[in-house]
Amino acid sequence: MSTVKAYGAKEEKADLKQMSIDRREPTSDDVHIEIMYCGVCHSDLHQVHNDWGGSKYPVVPGHEIIGKVTKRGDNVDSFDKGDWVGVGCMVDSCQTCSACKDDLEQFCENGATMTYNSKNKHLDGHTFGGYSETIVVNKEFVLKMPENLDPKGAAPLLCAGITTFSPLHHWKVSEGDKVGVIGLGGLGHMGIKFAAAMGAHVVMITTSPEKAEDAKRLGADEVLISKDEDAMSKQEGSFDFLLNTIPVGHDVNPYVNLLKRDATMVMVGAIEPIDPLHGGNLIMGRKRIAGSLIGGIKETQQMLDFCGEHNITSDIELIDMQDINDAYDRMQDGKVKYRFVIDMQSLKDAN
Amino acid sequence: MSTVKAYGAKEEKADLKQMSIDRREPTSDDVHIEIMYCGVCHSDLHQVHNDWGGSKYPVVPGHEIIGKVTKRGDNVDSFDKGDWVGVGCMVDSCQTCSACKDDLEQFCENGATMTYNSKNKHLDGHTFGGYSETIVVNKEFVLKMPENLDPKGAAPLLCAGITTFSPLHHWKVSEGDKVGVIGLGGLGHMGIKFAAAMGAHVVMITTSPEKAEDAKRLGADEVLISKDEDAMSKQEGSFDFLLNTIPVGHDVNPYVNLLKRDATMVMVGAIEPIDPLHGGNLIMGRKRIAGSLIGGIKETQQMLDFCGEHNITSDIELIDMQDINDAYDRMQDGKVKYRFVIDMQSLKDAN
Repeated sequence: MSTVKAYGAKEEKADLKQMSIDRREPTSDDVHIEIMYCGVCHSDLHQVHNDWGGSKYPVVPGHEIIGKVTKRGDNVDSFDKGDWVGVGCMVDSCQTCSACKDDLEQFCENGATMTYNSKNKHLDGHTFGGYSETIVVNKEFVLKMPENLDPKGAAPLLCAGITTFSPLHHWKVSEGDKVGVIGLGGLGHMGIKFAAAMGAHVVMITTSPEKAEDAKRLGADEVLISKDEDAMSKQEGSFDFLLNTIPVGHDVNPYVNLLKRDATMVMVGAIEPIDPLHGGNLIMGRKRIAGSLIGGIKETQQMLDFCGEHNITSDIELIDMQDINDAYDRMQDGKVKYRFVIDMQSLKDAN
Repeated sequence: MSTVKAYGAKEEKADLKQMSIDRREPTSDDVHIEIMYCGVCHSDLHQVHNDWGGSKYPVVPGHEIIGKVTKRGDNVDSFDKGDWVGVGCMVDSCQTCSACKDDLEQFCENGATMTYNSKNKHLDGHTFGGYSETIVVNKEFVLKMPENLDPKGAAPLLCAGITTFSPLHHWKVSEGDKVGVIGLGGLGHMGIKFAAAMGAHVVMITTSPEKAEDAKRLGADEVLISKDEDAMSKQEGSFDFLLNTIPVGHDVNPYVNLLKRDATMVMVGAIEPIDPLHGGNLIMGRKRIAGSLIGGIKETQQMLDFCGEHNITSDIELIDMQDINDAYDRMQDGKVKYRFVIDMQSLKDAN
């Protein structure tokens, strides 16, 4: 059993007191990774604050992990020492249920092992995430990073990236489709990049006129201000697909009205009750609302390969581990363009 | 211009005072129909009461029309005098927009002409429905009735039938699928019959244990009482498709939880706000909610042919025109198994 340094947080802000967390010795199917960068996801903060219940302390967050292979088990031939690899939201699943067989491990019927705050299958206790120096992961859950991508900007692809790529990919967004991306944050900015790279006509839909310029820089063809009723009314019934990244409950009716007949709006952010939806808005035009959760491992690798091909990374601000509490505060206030990534060298230097 | 007798209703109950309504002389593309039977739909009552706004008085309701061809225009060769025919919710559409070209006239982008209470394209004023002796309809909106079907029981197929058949057909319900039909009324009882005829394992989902026996008689394999939390919990994640016929706003979350991964619940009844839906219930399992509205003319004919093949009609109670106000009262109280149909001979006898 090896020990590494990591940080926990509980209600009061995280401090830099060292804690030892257990990492198993690599089995023959495992990859041992030195973590170089780790993205900061809003769900890290939710889990630190136990907003969803069930948080286990110490929480070591982090599921947007980029690192280098330092050791590999005897059965691992797909990775070499020194390879740049990624680890996302999951580190294991049953591999036998119908969801796993369909390459949708995120819906594993026996419960996927999430990268942190899940029951640890190998050791007592729970899993610890990527705000850490190393991690040991089953080879099936390790992703190959395209060599041309900047590893710092690539970290958020492992959660924000796949969360937005998967619905666009699954619902077959393609050249010429008119796609609306609702909400410009960590998820929304990736949604714009992906939809644009897929050849769609991308409309950024936001409450904030001041975000227009940046949305266009990211690849949006148009910006639609959702508070402008006239502008919304003009675009009614014109969208082939809507990717709704708003992270809180809200009134979805004005967005449903933007959909074409038979078109779908996919929710990826609002893990809470949404305001009353008018049944008539679905019935008129046979419209659809769906949800989507990250993506399976196979699709995550497809997403990374797509990013390699189109040179897509996240717009990030690199921080030291010591800055995490300020970063959380700024993230909560929506003051980050568009993702914080922790340089793990700062943690190594501190210890 | 011919005149026929019909009845209007406005806030106060309909009386049997004769009114003259305009029916155009058949054009070369028209079919003139003697109405024999007309189903009574809940939306007739909504329009009589102006619940949705926009009702034009006198309202002559009725869009589940069965009759015999009495005259046909010169360009009509698909119907002969004496043929049994049906007319549903629509009597015309633009025939040129993308919805019409896709055989989805119910979503005509220029506005389909509904059988009653729509702008009349040929005469001043609005359209009058099937609580009447005759009707003149463009040949494209006249349906052929299979000869083996009892015309009385076939009347409700034109609205309640297509409303439930269309989503089952469009979402490709097939042999062995586990299908839940939510709500046992005029729509729900047709949903059970269709899903069973398609070879599905049909579960009637209802709040009312007393409906169990009848649901099984109609073709349900199982009955699930939605107020029984244990029973609902046991069936979580097990349904391939849900047809939700509840006609009012309600909490859809317990039903969404019944869906399998990637499965859809289609709403056909609730043309009003539904209670807050938890985004997480869609996100976990990539589930979908959609709406559906009647069906296009081509699909309506497919539905009728399917009914002919499987000998499916509605369970009805035949009434005289003079009984309509009592029928409305009973319909509002849910006391009809499962559809009233007016024998139009009673109207002819009265005049």
